[in-house]
Amino acid sequence: MNIGVLGAGQLGRMLALAGYPLANRFTFLDTTGHPSAGIGDVMVYTDQHHLDDFLAKVDLVTYEFEHLPVALVRAIEEVKPVFPSSEAIRVCQNRAEEKALFDRLGIPTPAYRLVEHADELEAAARELGCPVVAKSVTEGYDGKGQAVIRDPAEAAEAWRAINHPRLIVEAFVDFVREVSIIAVRCRDGEVVFYPMAENVHVDGILRYSLAPMPDLDDSVQLVADDYIRALLDELDYVGVLTLELFQTRDGGLLANEMAPRVHNSGHWSMDGAVTSQFENHLRAIQGLPLGDTAARMPTCMVNVIGREGDPAAILAIEDAHLHRYDKAERPGRKLAHVNLLAPTHEALLEKARACAALLPEAPAPVFSFE
Amino acid sequence: MNIGVLGAGQLGRMLALAGYPLANRFTFLDTTGHPSAGIGDVMVYTDQHHLDDFLAKVDLVTYEFEHLPVALVRAIEEVKPVFPSSEAIRVCQNRAEEKALFDRLGIPTPAYRLVEHADELEAAARELGCPVVAKSVTEGYDGKGQAVIRDPAEAAEAWRAINHPRLIVEAFVDFVREVSIIAVRCRDGEVVFYPMAENVHVDGILRYSLAPMPDLDDSVQLVADDYIRALLDELDYVGVLTLELFQTRDGGLLANEMAPRVHNSGHWSMDGAVTSQFENHLRAIQGLPLGDTAARMPTCMVNVIGREGDPAAILAIEDAHLHRYDKAERPGRKLAHVNLLAPTHEALLEKARACAALLPEAPAPVFSFE
Repeated sequence: MNIGVLGAGQLGRMLALAGYPLANRFTFLDTTGHPSAGIGDVMVYTDQHHLDDFLAKVDLVTYEFEHLPVALVRAIEEVKPVFPSSEAIRVCQNRAEEKALFDRLGIPTPAYRLVEHADELEAAARELGCPVVAKSVTEGYDGKGQAVIRDPAEAAEAWRAINHPRLIVEAFVDFVREVSIIAVRCRDGEVVFYPMAENVHVDGILRYSLAPMPDLDDSVQLVADDYIRALLDELDYVGVLTLELFQTRDGGLLANEMAPRVHNSGHWSMDGAVTSQFENHLRAIQGLPLGDTAARMPTCMVNVIGREGDPAAILAIEDAHLHRYDKAERPGRKLAHVNLLAPTHEALLEKARACAALLPEAPAPVFSFE
Repeated sequence: MNIGVLGAGQLGRMLALAGYPLANRFTFLDTTGHPSAGIGDVMVYTDQHHLDDFLAKVDLVTYEFEHLPVALVRAIEEVKPVFPSSEAIRVCQNRAEEKALFDRLGIPTPAYRLVEHADELEAAARELGCPVVAKSVTEGYDGKGQAVIRDPAEAAEAWRAINHPRLIVEAFVDFVREVSIIAVRCRDGEVVFYPMAENVHVDGILRYSLAPMPDLDDSVQLVADDYIRALLDELDYVGVLTLELFQTRDGGLLANEMAPRVHNSGHWSMDGAVTSQFENHLRAIQGLPLGDTAARMPTCMVNVIGREGDPAAILAIEDAHLHRYDKAERPGRKLAHVNLLAPTHEALLEKARACAALLPEAPAPVFSFE
């Protein structure tokens, strides 16, 4: 089975590493001009000719990022099976569509408004109560196109800065922590759920994920399972889906956004779960039985960002698993991650602090349950 | 770090899969004309020109099989570091050298004689007591060049059949089971040991390995550790070394043979140990700290030989990890292996039987401790 992957970054690389043992072969179609997968057959897409070559080689198509032209994915669907479908991409790459889907399925979200004019933005800021965050409904890879509005009077300036015809305005949530749920749906509709992870972001970039959480009520996991199952079934989804949520003081969950793919907050599963998110994605899209998602041990994923530090020092940590992406160092760039396992959460936090201390400029890991 | 691998079969493939996360790249030099690694950069060696190209690409060299011309490996050592060294290859590819080393280090072996004539073979059969097994001191990949002699009168015929100027004749051992110990020595001399595995061979091919053994006395593991440490230190060895042994009724160990490489009887470590033999081999040859060799859970490795059966059925077994080599089916050919994990040995045996039942023509797994 030759699997075509749209995108050729570290997620594609890790999909391939999980797929070789299933006798899969991989062909990547890079659309950025900067592929980094470093494995399999990497093609760079500049014209229809390359797309045709790619499609001639592969048996089915998946992708490692969702900011793809929907028309392109639909055209591919005419020729080869695509999992997850173009419909999942269409919804996930547009914040307005995504929120409408959450609403339709009864999945609670932070209060929001859609606006198409600077005056509407100002009105939304007043109604929701500042601060609010305004975002263009579509987004590139760089997280641009956002502004925090601390006073309705700033609306006009924010509108100009974002410079997009349609924005979503969201109320700030007084959350206790950011969490995510990852689930996998197979071609036959079977769904499995990973234990939820607590995620620590710094400057908008994920730094740490920890799963399972020591203080998560089973009932909260079940609520998250229900939310993501509703999304999976509604989209007739095949593969891994990630839903990022806020957990509020009363334990409730509010959906933030979803990603129709394997996700950084699921990298812990490569060493910490019986079956990794990457292998389960590949099993799902090929119609193979899904693997057990249970955690073997408390696991903390530490992202290595900007600079690699000393890999040898990281490998000297007991039960530390280093996953380098073989990319050049650059500020803000995800270069690797480390999965740390420990028999108790106390020992795990100690290990996470020791690991963070080895990484240049890494903030100390602070989790909500400490 | 670009790692050159002599040989391009499934062992090289699995080395590469373990090495990408360490940011290693792989160049294979195939000397058989039939590379199957299916990953990295595979070069086929037919003349010096290819060897030069290979050496120009790589930073250091290792190998996945030891039946290489020693002169070739020595020539490579003049240009690039080779781990383990040509000396390890020289000893391991010659049964007489290997046995002499065992003797010198006080590692017990079955009684044996070296013979260079049909008459000497007949005398050895008489002295050792039939049945004996006669083997050419050097061996190709196919396990040919062996004969069982049930009566000294058969010696002349066996001599002609093997057709080699020097044979080793070994007494049969009344062993309880075949076991192996795998250890890793780093560039700085640090050594770590894997839990010993019980190995079940059928028709001379490994079928099952199980580790850790439920009934292995700690003192026996320590004896095996001492034996392999003596070999590692004597050879100033860097990388993974495997020592196959017979365990006798009184618990004692007799060395059978060694392999200067990652080994089929260590494949269980890919899912069952904290750090796999493949990753630890790569850590060792790069001078990185070695990883923990402890078993996470009782693990049984099941070889898939000749025919693949139904991979989907195998993947439906809980905590089953399939490793396919992406090779065409052929009688006697190793095509894949499955690692099965279970919390108890009882549950593990049940799982191993269920897995074997899914494989065409696989014999039922029978271990000594059942």
